[in-house]
Amino acid sequence: MNIPITKIGEFGLIERFRKQLKTDSSVIVGSGDDCAVLEFNRDNYLLFTCDTIIEGIDFSGKTLPYLVGRKSLATSLSDIAACAGKARYALVTIGLPKKSSLRKIEEISRGIFDLAKKYQVNIVGGDISRAKQLFIDTSVLGTVEKKALVLRKGAKKGDIIFVSGKLGGSIKGKHLEFTPRIKEARFLVKNFKLNSMIDISDGLIQDLAHILKQSCAGAFLYEELIPLARQASGIDDALYAGEDFELLFTLPLDEARKLNAMKKKFPFWPIGEIVEQKYGLRLVDKKGKDKILKIKGFRHF
Amino acid sequence: MNIPITKIGEFGLIERFRKQLKTDSSVIVGSGDDCAVLEFNRDNYLLFTCDTIIEGIDFSGKTLPYLVGRKSLATSLSDIAACAGKARYALVTIGLPKKSSLRKIEEISRGIFDLAKKYQVNIVGGDISRAKQLFIDTSVLGTVEKKALVLRKGAKKGDIIFVSGKLGGSIKGKHLEFTPRIKEARFLVKNFKLNSMIDISDGLIQDLAHILKQSCAGAFLYEELIPLARQASGIDDALYAGEDFELLFTLPLDEARKLNAMKKKFPFWPIGEIVEQKYGLRLVDKKGKDKILKIKGFRHF
Repeated sequence: MNIPITKIGEFGLIERFRKQLKTDSSVIVGSGDDCAVLEFNRDNYLLFTCDTIIEGIDFSGKTLPYLVGRKSLATSLSDIAACAGKARYALVTIGLPKKSSLRKIEEISRGIFDLAKKYQVNIVGGDISRAKQLFIDTSVLGTVEKKALVLRKGAKKGDIIFVSGKLGGSIKGKHLEFTPRIKEARFLVKNFKLNSMIDISDGLIQDLAHILKQSCAGAFLYEELIPLARQASGIDDALYAGEDFELLFTLPLDEARKLNAMKKKFPFWPIGEIVEQKYGLRLVDKKGKDKILKIKGFRHF
Repeated sequence: MNIPITKIGEFGLIERFRKQLKTDSSVIVGSGDDCAVLEFNRDNYLLFTCDTIIEGIDFSGKTLPYLVGRKSLATSLSDIAACAGKARYALVTIGLPKKSSLRKIEEISRGIFDLAKKYQVNIVGGDISRAKQLFIDTSVLGTVEKKALVLRKGAKKGDIIFVSGKLGGSIKGKHLEFTPRIKEARFLVKNFKLNSMIDISDGLIQDLAHILKQSCAGAFLYEELIPLARQASGIDDALYAGEDFELLFTLPLDEARKLNAMKKKFPFWPIGEIVEQKYGLRLVDKKGKDKILKIKGFRHF
């Protein structure tokens, strides 16, 4: 009975625990979306999320400490964006090898503080611990108007699928310098009726699969519509490379037409459509042929 | 200019960063207390805190996984108690070595879930990452009535200093099985006017020093009044051993008399009094002689 966790996998583990969680009626959405959604006041929900980055996995020992700090907060802000909220408060926990230099930790914190300032996030506390491996965990609290909240579930047959930026540039460095799409998400929910949204943190296909699973839906993606980052070496980088941190969202056809027609500050790319669940997740190539895509992407185990 | 962080120390580092933090008017208390205190609604504040425990520092590789999980949440609940609040929501981040067994992670989560149930805390999400060293970071949101909030600052000359339990049992195991003193803190603020409070997580002396620094005060402790845990090998265990996780609080003499006279569910021990800052922090021995205490306790660096 000593099963290694690698047999269960990251999502298997999470699913196993999620089933055991019981929450009271103040929890609108618990585990299973980009943020937890909690009762706050008449018009707004609280959003509560955390993200950890670890040396050797999410960045290397050679990554500029400033960018490590920046990324640690940016990943949590991207979760707030995926729920269409505004970020308000953050706690930062740092695990730090004993031999770290003061300069390194100062650069890390400068990366965090600069991004916090840009997004008007209050850093309200945290923790420093000794650790063998550098890691940073950020917890962020945000707010969202009840009517603006968008979740993973809610995608409907006929919805058009959009992304907020070019994909596949992650491995070549974008995962360190991406823009959390809070402004873009706020623009979207103020002007359009979105049915579902997620941020791409584990790869387009794996994250779209989360939307499809929670929405009981399928999808067709059109290869020629998927915008490739110039650093991408091919379509597979766009489909499976983990951390583009762009928004992936769906909205009804008439709303999609409005979005496409509108002269706007932010670019958005339509890449496919939501179909019935029985079709699964398919990629239509440039010749019009479709194939079922394997659901894969970044996994810790 | 490559100063090692060990030269600055944990509290030096934290102080350095704290000075750079700017927060808006919705932040009642930012970094520097047991919890951040945030505007919530007319009668209540939000409390926001996080705590990390790491293998090899906060528990050993031989510690029962159930107790590791329990401790990870208990430390954050203790922070909520120190601000006299109720815990409501938690996010749990786990860094897990790849070779961990399913049984181990299930025991860890059982420890977390059991404690969450006991304290009516909603676990609303989290994260699992691969890490070299097992660590768990819990972020907790709580609420506290505005009139009930107690901070580190606020201790006044003449206040009596109390603790909520016997001290010095930490190293012998209490740090793994302590009771977060939420009920005790709630009882106190409902019936008495407390001037300051903290939880003892770095040792009685070091944590009392936080109260004194923030309150610009000094203190006399009376050796014969300090309640020793039966596992304590002497007074030094009670003064300096890190993790008793008892409440340390101060209240005016007349309130202290009421507390001492009241027949109550919970035991509290008076151990000293708040004096002017110029006296520093002193221990009065059984012969009535006093000496200045060195401010020391657990530090990561």
